[in-house]
Amino acid sequence: MKNLEELYVSTLNDVYYAENKILRELPTMINKAHSAELKEALQHHFHETQGQLQRLEQCFNLIDAPIKAKKCEAIEGISKEAKEDLDAAKEPHVLDAALVGCAQAIEHYEISRYGTLVAWAKKLGQEKAASLLEQTLEEEKNADATLTGIALGGLNDMANMRHAA
Amino acid sequence: MKNLEELYVSTLNDVYYAENKILRELPTMINKAHSAELKEALQHHFHETQGQLQRLEQCFNLIDAPIKAKKCEAIEGISKEAKEDLDAAKEPHVLDAALVGCAQAIEHYEISRYGTLVAWAKKLGQEKAASLLEQTLEEEKNADATLTGIALGGLNDMANMRHAA
Repeated sequence: MKNLEELYVSTLNDVYYAENKILRELPTMINKAHSAELKEALQHHFHETQGQLQRLEQCFNLIDAPIKAKKCEAIEGISKEAKEDLDAAKEPHVLDAALVGCAQAIEHYEISRYGTLVAWAKKLGQEKAASLLEQTLEEEKNADATLTGIALGGLNDMANMRHAA
Repeated sequence: MKNLEELYVSTLNDVYYAENKILRELPTMINKAHSAELKEALQHHFHETQGQLQRLEQCFNLIDAPIKAKKCEAIEGISKEAKEDLDAAKEPHVLDAALVGCAQAIEHYEISRYGTLVAWAKKLGQEKAASLLEQTLEEEKNADATLTGIALGGLNDMANMRHAA
């Protein structure tokens, strides 16, 4: 990578891989969740992720780059850790609490990457792409805030009742 | 993990591993950085990380758990990706822009984990630990904001001048 444009496209490749991976893994997470509210939030994010992939495809087109995924080691690691955490959770409410934590780790990875991509797109004069990426960034921030609301709204209490029992 | 306390301690183990890994990798990142401002910000975060490890050790003590690290697959993946990105950057300013992006991915992983740990510590009545973890969470958010400031304050411009040249 010799210039900002190559770095930007390479990061689009990385995030395109990550979003595809998330789209494949969300159904398992939805399936594992016990809380109806959590299931619904993850289901909503599944649909958002489909739209986010389409936005990334538009960003590739806008800069005349092929639509390509590059293995994203970060999302691989975050997913591996999520699998371990969910396998280790032996009680439904504890699993839900762990699931929220893992989903928020995924959201925060995306928030960092989209934040960076928006800044780079603007610098490259890719105003339309910057606006698309900013829409996704807002969705990721909202998804994170929704998960915090679900955790604080009773899900952590449920996990802890088990502790007190 | 059958209750919230076990989940909390397991996540402390995970973050303790992650912070130790970050402490080992920051000197390489500081070494690779070209911008003096970026070097200084990373150096500052190196010292903060040492304090964050001590706070985690206090959190283990406060809940009578052994000070233990558990391999954190997420930070392993994020670090592997950072190494790939930095190896691929063939121009100093592009490397600095990539470095900021990677450092922010690390910060955001920590922000998500400390946010979760603060909520769980409070739920478990670990008020002192929650306050310690909240101090670290604020440091991570500030480190992320500092990096954004550095990127937008000229570093991305430098990376893009190369593109225009």
